[in-house]
Amino acid sequence: MIDRKYMRYSKLVGKTVRNAPADAIFDSHKLLYKSGFIRESTAGRYYFLPLGWRAHQKIAKIVREEMDRIGGQEMIVPVLQPLHLWQETNRTASVGFELMTIKDGREFQFALGGTAEEMFVDLVRNLKLSYRDLPFNIYQFSTKFRDEIRARGGLLRVREFVMKDAYSFDRDETEFKKTYRQMAETYTKIFKRLGLETLKVEADNGYIGGEYCHEYQAESPIGESRFFVSEDGKYSVHADVAKFKRDDKNIGEQLKPYREIKAVRGTTMQDGVKLHGLPLWQQIKDFMAVDENGNLILAVIRGDLDVNEIKLAHAAGCHHLRHATAEEIHALGSEPGFISPVGLKGKVKIIGDPSLRTIRNAYGGANGLHRDAVNMNIDRDYTVDIEADIAMAQSGFSTEDGKSKLVEKRGIEVGNIFQLGYHYTKLMKGANFIDEDGKEKPYYMGCYGIGIGRTMAAIVEKYHDKKGIVWPEAVAPYDAHVVEVGSKEYGVKKKAEGICKQLEQAGIEVLWDDRDYVSAGVKFADADLIGIPWRVVVSERLGDKVELKARNSSLTEELTVDQLISKLKV
Amino acid sequence: MIDRKYMRYSKLVGKTVRNAPADAIFDSHKLLYKSGFIRESTAGRYYFLPLGWRAHQKIAKIVREEMDRIGGQEMIVPVLQPLHLWQETNRTASVGFELMTIKDGREFQFALGGTAEEMFVDLVRNLKLSYRDLPFNIYQFSTKFRDEIRARGGLLRVREFVMKDAYSFDRDETEFKKTYRQMAETYTKIFKRLGLETLKVEADNGYIGGEYCHEYQAESPIGESRFFVSEDGKYSVHADVAKFKRDDKNIGEQLKPYREIKAVRGTTMQDGVKLHGLPLWQQIKDFMAVDENGNLILAVIRGDLDVNEIKLAHAAGCHHLRHATAEEIHALGSEPGFISPVGLKGKVKIIGDPSLRTIRNAYGGANGLHRDAVNMNIDRDYTVDIEADIAMAQSGFSTEDGKSKLVEKRGIEVGNIFQLGYHYTKLMKGANFIDEDGKEKPYYMGCYGIGIGRTMAAIVEKYHDKKGIVWPEAVAPYDAHVVEVGSKEYGVKKKAEGICKQLEQAGIEVLWDDRDYVSAGVKFADADLIGIPWRVVVSERLGDKVELKARNSSLTEELTVDQLISKLKV
Repeated sequence: MIDRKYMRYSKLVGKTVRNAPADAIFDSHKLLYKSGFIRESTAGRYYFLPLGWRAHQKIAKIVREEMDRIGGQEMIVPVLQPLHLWQETNRTASVGFELMTIKDGREFQFALGGTAEEMFVDLVRNLKLSYRDLPFNIYQFSTKFRDEIRARGGLLRVREFVMKDAYSFDRDETEFKKTYRQMAETYTKIFKRLGLETLKVEADNGYIGGEYCHEYQAESPIGESRFFVSEDGKYSVHADVAKFKRDDKNIGEQLKPYREIKAVRGTTMQDGVKLHGLPLWQQIKDFMAVDENGNLILAVIRGDLDVNEIKLAHAAGCHHLRHATAEEIHALGSEPGFISPVGLKGKVKIIGDPSLRTIRNAYGGANGLHRDAVNMNIDRDYTVDIEADIAMAQSGFSTEDGKSKLVEKRGIEVGNIFQLGYHYTKLMKGANFIDEDGKEKPYYMGCYGIGIGRTMAAIVEKYHDKKGIVWPEAVAPYDAHVVEVGSKEYGVKKKAEGICKQLEQAGIEVLWDDRDYVSAGVKFADADLIGIPWRVVVSERLGDKVELKARNSSLTEELTVDQLISKLKV
Repeated sequence: MIDRKYMRYSKLVGKTVRNAPADAIFDSHKLLYKSGFIRESTAGRYYFLPLGWRAHQKIAKIVREEMDRIGGQEMIVPVLQPLHLWQETNRTASVGFELMTIKDGREFQFALGGTAEEMFVDLVRNLKLSYRDLPFNIYQFSTKFRDEIRARGGLLRVREFVMKDAYSFDRDETEFKKTYRQMAETYTKIFKRLGLETLKVEADNGYIGGEYCHEYQAESPIGESRFFVSEDGKYSVHADVAKFKRDDKNIGEQLKPYREIKAVRGTTMQDGVKLHGLPLWQQIKDFMAVDENGNLILAVIRGDLDVNEIKLAHAAGCHHLRHATAEEIHALGSEPGFISPVGLKGKVKIIGDPSLRTIRNAYGGANGLHRDAVNMNIDRDYTVDIEADIAMAQSGFSTEDGKSKLVEKRGIEVGNIFQLGYHYTKLMKGANFIDEDGKEKPYYMGCYGIGIGRTMAAIVEKYHDKKGIVWPEAVAPYDAHVVEVGSKEYGVKKKAEGICKQLEQAGIEVLWDDRDYVSAGVKFADADLIGIPWRVVVSERLGDKVELKARNSSLTEELTVDQLISKLKV
């Protein structure tokens, strides 16, 4: 039996431990584990222990306050989403392996969603609204499921997580643009309140759909997201979709006659450079891919550039790509490492990057083992079916306008906002409102996500030192960590409890290290590891006073309890 | 784009509608639908719209406060529970059809749990705690899944719902009993704060396990739970497990010789009464059942009593029972409608109710078509393998001590508390703590649930009138419903908005009916349907004053805004 007002550390579930799991690489993973905030159940599925859940809820509270401030209406949708809704929007195809499905006892199929566009649209279309009800945005905090192949890195890449997902419904594009701008500003504000400076970067919309979207990146050296910011600050963009200017190379050179030659070399680009003694950029790079329907796609690009598979899939109009096998390449009459667009026209869809127009007299494979071609020129020797930007940007490349340079950064994607437009409301029958003119019109939509757990990890990545986490006050699980020193000395325990009571009455949330079986040193180390903003020491030596220390400072001060309360209550 | 502080009804998602779904029977279902609180996605899976979610969260907040007051530590466990944990406790067998399972892309199996005992025990055993960490109780609010065959009645019987489930870990039974008592008191307090008077009744533990448990029943004529309270108030018990005293019948009668006779009759108990001209209670009732492993079980009971299948399953030591088919009965050499325990000994497990000892010279079937037996007497003519209480109690029956009578009631089960003892900690390897003597000992556990949505429905069942819901203040989605009348008249809208602002600043939550396209009558009817405790009318006629009316009263009063605020702020 327990009766308490403030949390006694002795009874806390999830105490500090000395070692993180062997596979933990990131500081946030190690620290959240060691300080007793999280535990893994199966790969990528986490328990949030009491301290962790408090921090999680503090983050959610700030997100909720800001969503409500702009008129967001919180609600909840069922976890099990009817699969037929996902079929209605064709997302069963586009989401692919990440989607988990389940049947009930009556053979009815459900999806465990990674997002909930269909559920919200299905609700709204059944409400049969009019222009008078618009605009609105509805949101929920709920568990999302993504059956990621790899789940590691603690809370940074998981298979289950709580996401705030919001969906806006507007009358038209003009109204939507105001909503989108307001949401963008709200996101910046939310992350700022959470202690994170974020960059809003253009991004790929993945399987969500729509025409444009932005990610909120918390810059971090360990972030999984690669993105670019131009030196002039005007362009922020995810590597998946980053555009850049292709500088001309030997564009002034005369066209020379196309020739095929014997080329006994290995299959790498560097093998070609060595054999021909020509620059890498003059070589043609060929990448043979296969889409989800088994169609072969040949991507062709200037040798010094890499193919961006996201851009390539968009150009090819498919959802997923894989590398072609040697057998598939042989079946085409070509050879791995010696592929050439010359002569493959009609046999395979050829997608060429505009960089091919910045070089002349290129060299590369000739579709046979140890056969190369030299003086290949686009339009004259080969043509492409689709000419499209399929290149990966790199640090130092020029922006499209040529006025600035791209600088590569890494970040943790903590949020994203998507224009959806009519994507869902045209695919889902009857997703209309009655406009002022009496006509049914589809809603113009957007959607907006924030992963709470990943945001928590991003905060820890930013706010920690060698001793542990250094929580910003807004998201700390408790405000004050009361540490009694010399528990068994006269009056110490009683005094500590009295102070806890007074702090709680003043609205200050308290974790009280009441253990009488560990040393002061252990308690201080634990307090540093857990990272609550204020440490309050109570001991016999201090008499009526307490010692206050901020987690992010080494200074201590002795205060009366009244002084303590007025200082912490700010 | 929206920018607001208080909720404008014109933009609210989930407005009132005139008609409830055709299949809605219960008032809570009809009213929560019509007032725009809930919508069904698929059978038994509900959206909580913004008003509904606010009420849901208000209920959850009160539950949380009371759980925290007794030291509960809120946390969260993953939604997908490894199925191997359920196998460890053999619950995959006992839960049966209600359990949904799912595989991920790597063929790993998960359960969508209806409760989370295994998950909490798995967490705790891995934390490797000692007696110093005890006792504690940990809880979560999370979605639970039960693949009920029938899901109807709005929020009263669903397939997905948010449940607060708590799990207590104690050192031994003595400590646990204090925890259990404290939790029981807390439950009564929680429901009282929510406006519900509940009865704590002894109940069956279903597939949860453990030795005893109690349900919290909110008495309601439409409740699905049948339970009994003795007239002296000393005994409250669910019909599933209700015990009673079996009154003696013709126990003084001489034993007569056993005989089999021709009996051309139908197969009901009444057909037997008619043919023999003897009381129903003197007839023997035989019920042939089959357990989940295909074993036949014959239940035998006095003719005026009914077999309680829950009790029968416990007596038989199985999880699920079904009625035997005619083929199965024929295969035994018996006949449906003419079954007799005489001669079936050894062929089938016979379970007899003690009521068989309150009669003599019973009559009934003789295991052949149109063959009956008369003067059957237990021990002399037949014996049972197990003698156990397998009878359904009825209103008016005596309590076991014979001092009082049972009175039947119906209720909505809004919560339950379970002693689990060592049930899980002995089945799950290593679920031990280190005790003071250095030895590993299993935790002594309990678990405690409250279904939030069902509690909400129970509140609506109790608090409504012909016009709509009458929310208790503690759980109302908003405190005040500001209704502007004559929106287009000079100054009305501005005045209404000003009052909303002032109320919000005073901490009073406001729903503002700002619609200028419906009549005052429609607005008042909507306010009554939605049921927010205080209605505040703003109109030109009222000048600087407003008209206040409580939803549960017909009286109105005119107040200044300051008077309004001081009245509502209480």
